[in-house]
Amino acid sequence: MSDEASHLKILAEVFASSSAALHVGIGDDAAVVAPTQSAIALSTDMAVEGTHFDREWSTPYEIGGKVAAANLADIFAMGGKPEYLLVAAAIPSDFTAQDLKSLAEGIRDEAAKVNAIVVGGDLVSSAILTIAVSVFGEVSKPILRSGAKIGDVVAISGLPGESSRGLQLLQSGVRDERTKGHRYPDMDYSKIINLDITLTHALTDVSDGLIAELESLSQASGVGIDIDSSRISTDIHTLHGGEDHIFVGTFITLPEGWIEIGRVEATSGVRLDGKVITHQGFTHF
Amino acid sequence: MSDEASHLKILAEVFASSSAALHVGIGDDAAVVAPTQSAIALSTDMAVEGTHFDREWSTPYEIGGKVAAANLADIFAMGGKPEYLLVAAAIPSDFTAQDLKSLAEGIRDEAAKVNAIVVGGDLVSSAILTIAVSVFGEVSKPILRSGAKIGDVVAISGLPGESSRGLQLLQSGVRDERTKGHRYPDMDYSKIINLDITLTHALTDVSDGLIAELESLSQASGVGIDIDSSRISTDIHTLHGGEDHIFVGTFITLPEGWIEIGRVEATSGVRLDGKVITHQGFTHF
Repeated sequence: MSDEASHLKILAEVFASSSAALHVGIGDDAAVVAPTQSAIALSTDMAVEGTHFDREWSTPYEIGGKVAAANLADIFAMGGKPEYLLVAAAIPSDFTAQDLKSLAEGIRDEAAKVNAIVVGGDLVSSAILTIAVSVFGEVSKPILRSGAKIGDVVAISGLPGESSRGLQLLQSGVRDERTKGHRYPDMDYSKIINLDITLTHALTDVSDGLIAELESLSQASGVGIDIDSSRISTDIHTLHGGEDHIFVGTFITLPEGWIEIGRVEATSGVRLDGKVITHQGFTHF
Repeated sequence: MSDEASHLKILAEVFASSSAALHVGIGDDAAVVAPTQSAIALSTDMAVEGTHFDREWSTPYEIGGKVAAANLADIFAMGGKPEYLLVAAAIPSDFTAQDLKSLAEGIRDEAAKVNAIVVGGDLVSSAILTIAVSVFGEVSKPILRSGAKIGDVVAISGLPGESSRGLQLLQSGVRDERTKGHRYPDMDYSKIINLDITLTHALTDVSDGLIAELESLSQASGVGIDIDSSRISTDIHTLHGGEDHIFVGTFITLPEGWIEIGRVEATSGVRLDGKVITHQGFTHF
């Protein structure tokens, strides 16, 4: 068996799944799934070694989980439920069959936490490990960034900054459990799965940093957002660190288990205790 | 405006589209499209510079078109109709704003040939230009590789080998129009769009080479396929060249405009004038 054939066999085995809604799985030209009752949310995210992860720091399993989490978060952030994933991976020559199996298992296991499954993919070679995941979900009522209303409670589903803190530690040579937030965020999907969307006006996930996402919500909604420093740490990781994929939104009333951090105001932009604050962080270019 | 913001603005402009079925387009966490009546086909394909294309040979517009064509073909090869694309691209630092615009236009224009639109994407940086496209389509009756029946006509929608011939010329230094088949396949979608799927038992696109795809159909269907050398050129590019994305299938009767090349037999494997032939070609690993 060629390396290509054996690699594809590994993926077919790891991603094997059966569901009444999965009409055609891996192995033909495309997957085929049942029609949906609701509207369909579609999103894709790409991760590149050296930019988004480093194999010296993260296991293939952790990398797979992290990439999957970023994609699942995008569907949840629309008020949707992720169901099917497609995985395209470009792997370098030193990436072993075991590495590939672990990467696939990381993606599969993260998806399984929310009952989503991998239904197809593509595998090619490249000098730089690169993974693109696309995700398909159902959404009965899309929650946009533009829906924030004056007087709304601004709340987060967890504390951001762990990925950024972990990255700083990794860059300074630390290799222990304190870096886990960067290597493989431990997503608590229960907060978003149980969110009452009838109370939710605007929603997104913190991929680019809390202040950056609040700026985006503020601009899209044409409102101001005021953060209360008594309710959240104001260190740089918490306010500006990205890639945690916790959720931030604006709500009629505080959702159960979420953390209130401020209010939507009749101003513009983002303020911390009334003073304008802007994103200070990493951009990809 | 940062480079990242200006790049994303370019993509939002090139991919801007409106359709009653597109509820939420580019700019939020995910795109949202209307529910479908039919089942849904999902596929993804990744292309890497150096493996699938070379910027010395192909323009960004051609690269975009080629990657889109490969994805659209996967949905057609299931008997489906492609509708929405997601584009994830990792771009190197020497890839200019104009290059990005051209790449996006190549994808958009290829999709537009079959009335498909780009609804979302991701843009990251990498030393190696890498593009992953995912495609979503509707399919009322999936046509599998496993459906071939003894006595079927085996037919192709066009002549394969142009991509492989073009690549050989490019590798020998030729840079003229004869290489176009490799740089940017001129897809004739009418043959597949007008195909009567009630006459179609098995179908795929020639991404890996004609003999390789026939081997796959033969194995999946548990039948033999005999090719008649009086009906098709037997040079190596025609039989073994990949990435043309013409279509090959088995049919109750020859579809209008398709080229008959052989018959499905009560044997196994692929034969050329009765003698066993196997794929000789390029694999990715």
